[in-house]
Amino acid sequence: MCRWIAYRGETISLERYVTAPDHSLIEQSMLALESSASISGDGFGLGWYAGHAEPGLYREVRPAWSDENLRHLCQHIRSHLFFAHVRASTGTPTTRPNCHPFAQGRWLFMHNGQVGNWSLIRRQVEALIPDAYYGSRIGTTDSEALFLAILGAGIEDDPVGATVRTLATVADIVRASGTREPVRFTAALSDGHDLYAFRYSTDDAATSLYYRDTGSHVLVVSEPLDKDVAYWKPVPPGHTVVVREGQRAVLQPFPPDSRLAAE
Amino acid sequence: MCRWIAYRGETISLERYVTAPDHSLIEQSMLALESSASISGDGFGLGWYAGHAEPGLYREVRPAWSDENLRHLCQHIRSHLFFAHVRASTGTPTTRPNCHPFAQGRWLFMHNGQVGNWSLIRRQVEALIPDAYYGSRIGTTDSEALFLAILGAGIEDDPVGATVRTLATVADIVRASGTREPVRFTAALSDGHDLYAFRYSTDDAATSLYYRDTGSHVLVVSEPLDKDVAYWKPVPPGHTVVVREGQRAVLQPFPPDSRLAAE
Amino acid sequence: MCRWIAYRGETISLERYVTAPDHSLIEQSMLALESSASISGDGFGLGWYAGHAEPGLYREVRPAWSDENLRHLCQHIRSHLFFAHVRASTGTPTTRPNCHPFAQGRWLFMHNGQVGNWSLIRRQVEALIPDAYYGSRIGTTDSEALFLAILGAGIEDDPVGATVRTLATVADIVRASGTREPVRFTAALSDGHDLYAFRYSTDDAATSLYYRDTGSHVLVVSEPLDKDVAYWKPVPPGHTVVVREGQRAVLQPFPPDSRLAAE
Amino acid sequence: MCRWIAYRGETISLERYVTAPDHSLIEQSMLALESSASISGDGFGLGWYAGHAEPGLYREVRPAWSDENLRHLCQHIRSHLFFAHVRASTGTPTTRPNCHPFAQGRWLFMHNGQVGNWSLIRRQVEALIPDAYYGSRIGTTDSEALFLAILGAGIEDDPVGATVRTLATVADIVRASGTREPVRFTAALSDGHDLYAFRYSTDDAATSLYYRDTGSHVLVVSEPLDKDVAYWKPVPPGHTVVVREGQRAVLQPFPPDSRLAAE
Repeated sequence: MCRWIAYRGETISLERYVTAPDHSLIEQSMLALESSASISGDGFGLGWYAGHAEPGLYREVRPAWSDENLRHLCQHIRSHLFFAHVRASTGTPTTRPNCHPFAQGRWLFMHNGQVGNWSLIRRQVEALIPDAYYGSRIGTTDSEALFLAILGAGIEDDPVGATVRTLATVADIVRASGTREPVRFTAALSDGHDLYAFRYSTDDAATSLYYRDTGSHVLVVSEPLDKDVAYWKPVPPGHTVVVREGQRAVLQPFPPDSRLAAE
Repeated sequence: MCRWIAYRGETISLERYVTAPDHSLIEQSMLALESSASISGDGFGLGWYAGHAEPGLYREVRPAWSDENLRHLCQHIRSHLFFAHVRASTGTPTTRPNCHPFAQGRWLFMHNGQVGNWSLIRRQVEALIPDAYYGSRIGTTDSEALFLAILGAGIEDDPVGATVRTLATVADIVRASGTREPVRFTAALSDGHDLYAFRYSTDDAATSLYYRDTGSHVLVVSEPLDKDVAYWKPVPPGHTVVVREGQRAVLQPFPPDSRLAAE
Repeated sequence: MCRWIAYRGETISLERYVTAPDHSLIEQSMLALESSASISGDGFGLGWYAGHAEPGLYREVRPAWSDENLRHLCQHIRSHLFFAHVRASTGTPTTRPNCHPFAQGRWLFMHNGQVGNWSLIRRQVEALIPDAYYGSRIGTTDSEALFLAILGAGIEDDPVGATVRTLATVADIVRASGTREPVRFTAALSDGHDLYAFRYSTDDAATSLYYRDTGSHVLVVSEPLDKDVAYWKPVPPGHTVVVREGQRAVLQPFPPDSRLAAE
Repeated sequence: MCRWIAYRGETISLERYVTAPDHSLIEQSMLALESSASISGDGFGLGWYAGHAEPGLYREVRPAWSDENLRHLCQHIRSHLFFAHVRASTGTPTTRPNCHPFAQGRWLFMHNGQVGNWSLIRRQVEALIPDAYYGSRIGTTDSEALFLAILGAGIEDDPVGATVRTLATVADIVRASGTREPVRFTAALSDGHDLYAFRYSTDDAATSLYYRDTGSHVLVVSEPLDKDVAYWKPVPPGHTVVVREGQRAVLQPFPPDSRLAAE
């Protein structure tokens, strides 16, 4: 399982949460505590907004823990909204285009989880990607395919709805393929203004997700960055955390009338 | 444009042709003479048969000229049938899965050229890949898609026919997309016994291809490895070089009754 | 030969000079015009000052032309003083620690050139590095050794003097080793406030160096970034360009009483 | 701590011991059982003898577990004497020249351990390297420096003696530097004919080492490759395993009259 953090708040250096805390993302890449796969050493990435509508992106195939560039960039890049991700591959090769986050226009996305029976149903999921975005598929992960499908499902008008609808469709495809493997989706999405984080699974083993809202900033993380457990609230399965510009984090259940509700 | 060499003959160290000659493939990676793109520094690869039905593969994103591993491997690996390729990207990222050669079962393939209008017609070409091989698409190049499509077009019974038919179909797709961009295909294919090399283009600017048959071995190359020009015979456009086990190289025109003939 | 650019002036995105111009540093990495080695594909690096006393650093072994991260970073990083370098190795391996620029504390350094007879006299040059800086020698290039030796020769009080003295000592070592190979040194040095650029050689073939002072900024470059030749002034051999904070570029000859004057 | 295996015996594919066993070296790179550092993800390497006096070498900065090339090479390379090593850095950067094994002429060497107070005494250890080998120092690890020092200490006449003498000298240097940090040295050395493995430490916490002699081959390993514990004999601290061509493994104590005995 991958580990990630998403930040929205006052402008800070990335190092404050990516490299500095006791149980920072870099520490988690070597020893995740709430995951069956303890090592996330199959590449990593940063995405951040700063002065441009489109996010910056730094992705690399080496483990995060030994990348000197990462430490320099985290020290020097300042942002009010950024993503960081360490990858544990579920089978696709370790290449930069397979590393998270993924960017398209002003949208940024990262994911922890899996799409069941992926090698068999991959082409069906890729068919959900509109032609306009298919040229942007430069890797081969399920995560990138999900992102491009969400982009094509009406993300501009309704990012949460586009995500929920895409998940419902993909869950149908997986189920129809005859597997019992789940769709697990713990993901973050942003347009540079608002931050959306999702915790969803078709089985009862959704991968972990927490958030902390201090008033001046919100962090959404795969697992807490320190031992102040009281400050970190678990996101319940089937819920979205929405952090709009200048507002507190809001927890929303997935829509009750969606096909997802039936699961 | 990429540069490549294919060898079939007595068992030798790869270094004899990959790294040693005056105008070796490594030299060509820094200065190709018969190509508009003089540098092929976007990754490289080796594929070789030795003791297994399935070929060995070594692919790397660094330029061939600075890879110490490549020199060691070329010195130590011996083979009767091997491919070597230096890559000049036409747009896809520099990742190992996008480097040539490509291997699937006992088949090995590498390519120099392009599929016109690729970003627009990519999905149609990928649709030619049978489900059985789609899971093997671990990169995003036109070359890998062509190879997997050829595999699905009857390669076991008729490798040349499968290749020619796939090219005809792809040429139709490209033409129907409304572009004037050509399909150019200078490629090598092998099952570990026989070697097939193709020179084809839908326009009159097929990329260069030469061969040399010494009796004890055959080399097929993007451009001659030395100045003994008389020894290197150009492969005419629309022709295949077939090197069967224990036989001399045979030059065959593409089938006159194929749709390709109409072009 | 490597290619590099150094910038001091109003705060801008790095892309304005690293990736955007007609004959940008990235273009030069594929085709240098004023160098015997036309390709600089053996790694590259960025160093920049922004908000910290110590510079940021991004160094990578891949060629600059195929690095997606580089384009993102050049677009998003803004600085008033930055270095960019594309490397053509003179023999040392292509590793990140062998890529330029080099940073130590608040100092930043990059180099194009060579130290004659390097493999034989290397240990003598390394002996010039004080113990305090020897732990910072994480690569094996002549360039990094020169930088650490300059740091130890009084850089805080007199950066130009420390550089000139170190060059004199190294030139003596090379000469005493019995070779006719030159010491060539076209380099940039900064403490985050002032920028120093040097053009020096013990023979009459100093590698090229130009500068342009527009009033709002100064660029020092291995070769002009565009065809407006009139704007780019060659730095004469044996000269230093000094760009102090808030002042115009000043050209200074190497000190007449230095041993260097005798050459 | 790193993990490694050394093999001498009948000619086999490297995969038999590098990638295939339950607790293969690749598995150990993700979860070492007899080491405080459980991950060895800071590069890896292979060295092997086959048909040349000089060994082949493949070293890479990525973790061994995600390197497709490694699996191909282990499947296709056959050898009667090979080394494989996965690296857990003790501080030096993750570069290919810092990865094990190291080769010089026909000699091959790899190491697990540390030289106490390294950054302070490094220059003294490098001073043990004769000029003839100093040009071969292309990395910055303590391990490579030890190897080149051993080469200069009479390796051709007496490999074990040269190693023991070098360790005694280095232990003196470390002790004189005023640290309590130990010299730990669990290493393998070969000239392509004989195999030598050493377990040594200046404190009582020598890193683990085992061997297994089946009659047809000898394996020396950081930790057993399977659960057949009875087959794996621990090498006592202060001992050398010598495997001469065509003979059984012999366990030898370090010479009693060496300065090492006093420790």
